Amino acid sequence: MNIGFIGLGAMGLPMAINLVRAGHAVTAFDFNTDALTAFAGQGGQVADSAAVAAKTADFFVLMVVNGDQADDVLFGAGKAVESLPSGACVIASCTQPPAQARALGEKLAQHQLTLVDAPVSGGVGGAGTGTLTIMASCPAHVFETARPVLDVVGKNVFHVGEDHGAGSTAKLVNQLLCGVHIAAAAEALQLAQAAGVDPKSVFDIVSVSAASSWMLNDRGPRMLEDDPEVRSAVDIFVKDLGIVLDHGRSARHALPLSAAAHQMFLAASGAGLGRKDDSQVIQTYRALNRKPDEKD
Amino acid sequence: MNIGFIGLGAMGLPMAINLVRAGHAVTAFDFNTDALTAFAGQGGQVADSAAVAAKTADFFVLMVVNGDQADDVLFGAGKAVESLPSGACVIASCTQPPAQARALGEKLAQHQLTLVDAPVSGGVGGAGTGTLTIMASCPAHVFETARPVLDVVGKNVFHVGEDHGAGSTAKLVNQLLCGVHIAAAAEALQLAQAAGVDPKSVFDIVSVSAASSWMLNDRGPRMLEDDPEVRSAVDIFVKDLGIVLDHGRSARHALPLSAAAHQMFLAASGAGLGRKDDSQVIQTYRALNRKPDEKD
Repeated sequence: MNIGFIGLGAMGLPMAINLVRAGHAVTAFDFNTDALTAFAGQGGQVADSAAVAAKTADFFVLMVVNGDQADDVLFGAGKAVESLPSGACVIASCTQPPAQARALGEKLAQHQLTLVDAPVSGGVGGAGTGTLTIMASCPAHVFETARPVLDVVGKNVFHVGEDHGAGSTAKLVNQLLCGVHIAAAAEALQLAQAAGVDPKSVFDIVSVSAASSWMLNDRGPRMLEDDPEVRSAVDIFVKDLGIVLDHGRSARHALPLSAAAHQMFLAASGAGLGRKDDSQVIQTYRALNRKPDEKD
Repeated sequence: MNIGFIGLGAMGLPMAINLVRAGHAVTAFDFNTDALTAFAGQGGQVADSAAVAAKTADFFVLMVVNGDQADDVLFGAGKAVESLPSGACVIASCTQPPAQARALGEKLAQHQLTLVDAPVSGGVGGAGTGTLTIMASCPAHVFETARPVLDVVGKNVFHVGEDHGAGSTAKLVNQLLCGVHIAAAAEALQLAQAAGVDPKSVFDIVSVSAASSWMLNDRGPRMLEDDPEVRSAVDIFVKDLGIVLDHGRSARHALPLSAAAHQMFLAASGAGLGRKDDSQVIQTYRALNRKPDEKD
């Protein structure tokens, strides 16, 4: 297959490389020339614009930051929609509100292009090993056509529904839970610490009890480190819980825990921790509950 | 060992029976005479007051609702402290604020009695199979003495610290996470439902992704049932998150997610769902986000 690929970030680059290794002809574009060089070094073809990457594509994968960027690549500055062959399939793997995914599908249909609303979960690790979770929605026949491509980048490939937006809704639900669970873990471990109880001992208990979550078990140990390795940044959840709450706002749908969790990530970012590991939202809890005799 | 046991509720009765089966002489008291009859039928001895159950006890287990009830059994109407043999060890397995556990230890010491602050987790299931998690705090020599008794009712027996209150703090952290995770699961699944996406499909995704939690995976399926079996009631979390927030209030410690989750359980209880399965907190989210054309 000819695949156009836009967005060679921390997840996009290994995804595109996995597609090359699977035998596809992948032409990629990114504004970051270092990423393009790295991709070329792995046997990928590089383009000097999104429109060029789109030219002969059977599938056009968008691994960009959000729906606005996807729209810009296709219909804005990127002008990719003008060079995509008729009948090509766009795989939009960014996180975006369901309504934006639906609107994208409608706009593409006007150009005889199909869409798989296909956000992913599993992080940089899953991108590298080709074990991402993919939450796809589109008509069944489009899904069957795109499946071989999706199976290269993901291990758990779900067809959530026929309507565009269903995949993005599943992703919203996923990010809602991930974000709330990280903030809850921080709230819990900092409570133990403030009460004078060894948070590592408490972590050892709650990580094997009914209190456990995937995020608690993954982020908990890094919450107890001073300046841990950055696996996923605070600002990712500023963005993703932001998209969850944008959806809630436009749908007039109240999400009280998500809103509270978002405030903690926002405050962490505001305190200069936006590029730190997201486990460091615990520092916001420490600041929130600082006692008069404690230092910064 | 001679063991006095107060509180033959849904968890206390199977715990006391497990102690009988392990070969201990267990004398129990509860205000519920049906529970006493059930216990006698399993080879237990029954007393007609807490003081009588305490009379020859090496260990005196309190599996009551909260710290106030524990205090009442020992120092109030129960008067158990007057009949406990000098040197006996009280095992307080109720959920209570850390400060109350500490105060209890100090009061018992004045009567030459020791305390294991030993709240449990694992529910009715864990109580029946003797696989509870026990979060114990007390001086190390007291813990070693009590360990054979704790090992009968629990599988994961942790010595969290030497100071009374550390066990109760671990339990607070545990309940904070459990309560927030249940409310988050409800917030997430109801969001999918309201967006017109099959919540069962979304559950199948998030229950195997980084979004998963023990509570999501356990409660999620019951959230999608109309009137599920009651495994643990809404009012348990009204109480337990209440204890978490009581601690936060007295320690001047802000817990924004716990507070938001507690509001949802409170509203569920206020809507008449207090004795329903705690998964039914999702009904509060449905009420909160009801659209004009939806029925009750």
